[in-house]
Amino acid sequence: MKFHTEYLTFNTKKHREYVHITPQVEAAVGKSGVREGMVLVSAMHITAGVWVNDNESGLIGDIDEWLEKLAPFREDYRHHQTGESNGDSHLKSLLVHHQVILPITAGRLDLGPWQAVFYAEFDGQRPKRVVIKVMGE
Amino acid sequence: MKFHTEYLTFNTKKHREYVHITPQVEAAVGKSGVREGMVLVSAMHITAGVWVNDNESGLIGDIDEWLEKLAPFREDYRHHQTGESNGDSHLKSLLVHHQVILPITAGRLDLGPWQAVFYAEFDGQRPKRVVIKVMGE
Amino acid sequence: MKFHTEYLTFNTKKHREYVHITPQVEAAVGKSGVREGMVLVSAMHITAGVWVNDNESGLIGDIDEWLEKLAPFREDYRHHQTGESNGDSHLKSLLVHHQVILPITAGRLDLGPWQAVFYAEFDGQRPKRVVIKVMGE
Repeated sequence: MKFHTEYLTFNTKKHREYVHITPQVEAAVGKSGVREGMVLVSAMHITAGVWVNDNESGLIGDIDEWLEKLAPFREDYRHHQTGESNGDSHLKSLLVHHQVILPITAGRLDLGPWQAVFYAEFDGQRPKRVVIKVMGE
Repeated sequence: MKFHTEYLTFNTKKHREYVHITPQVEAAVGKSGVREGMVLVSAMHITAGVWVNDNESGLIGDIDEWLEKLAPFREDYRHHQTGESNGDSHLKSLLVHHQVILPITAGRLDLGPWQAVFYAEFDGQRPKRVVIKVMGE
Repeated sequence: MKFHTEYLTFNTKKHREYVHITPQVEAAVGKSGVREGMVLVSAMHITAGVWVNDNESGLIGDIDEWLEKLAPFREDYRHHQTGESNGDSHLKSLLVHHQVILPITAGRLDLGPWQAVFYAEFDGQRPKRVVIKVMGE
């Protein structure tokens, strides 16, 4: 059984930003030598998400606007009494989930034609990590 | 270590439809011969979801209404400038997540008594796929 | 390949309650003897969730208020025609997802510094279970 673990670090320019990371996940699978198995892609922070969806900039804008509507920035979150100002970033992370697990078949990511992996940064402008863990044979 | 991969194809009659697929997942686990492990059930499209919840038709109606409220159809999504009209389907997919992973213990799906696996179609009336990947011993 | 399965039972005092379970997950990983692999933490009920986020009481209060806003208790859910009164609990479970999968590296949960695992009870005051399944080498 083979395992391969690596960490990606993102330091986005904007407070919220969506980064296409399918190529990095594919590269990790290639390095692992795994032909059959699964790869976990998981944010290591509680104000970020990882999702699989379309790599289309208009949709990314729609998602961003929608998340701000459902989990808006507000001054008065209880969490802000700790000195933080990112209560909404935590809620956005919960809404989209912080991880995906992708099947590996015949040595490749077994994704549908439009499926792309995204790192969703909800409180950026500082270094943040994602763990990629490949497991299989 | 054993692996078993199969693909289900759905071509729903309605634009949005919720299909109970526990029997298909159980059958895949049976075919795999895996006694201990996990099975990933994951939509291969970006306008569909997979969830575990109750197989009760009233609740399914509630979920559908709730999803339309939180992620409504709108004419003016940016995504529609590409010629698509399914912006809301992408948002619904993100909200409920597109995959689940189920434990296998003693050769069976290790689910609670009311847990049922559903394929959630948010943009149907055309063939769409789900991957089932079993991994274990 | 090693597997370790255990079940936690919660009987919360309140209808909705959020229980920090990182120590229990760490203990399960320790018992498993797995050095490299993954651990699935999954609610076995359809009115509960499992998430990874901050162990900060103010934020927990924010999350609870936010979930009640997005998936409110209502008398008139169709599901209540079955005699149930927990339609909102099902919707809250779908919103936050019912499971996480955590990487294990060098014998330890490979989490970021603020990541904590929570069991989210949305319809408590009765015994409910979570399955922990460790898989690896």
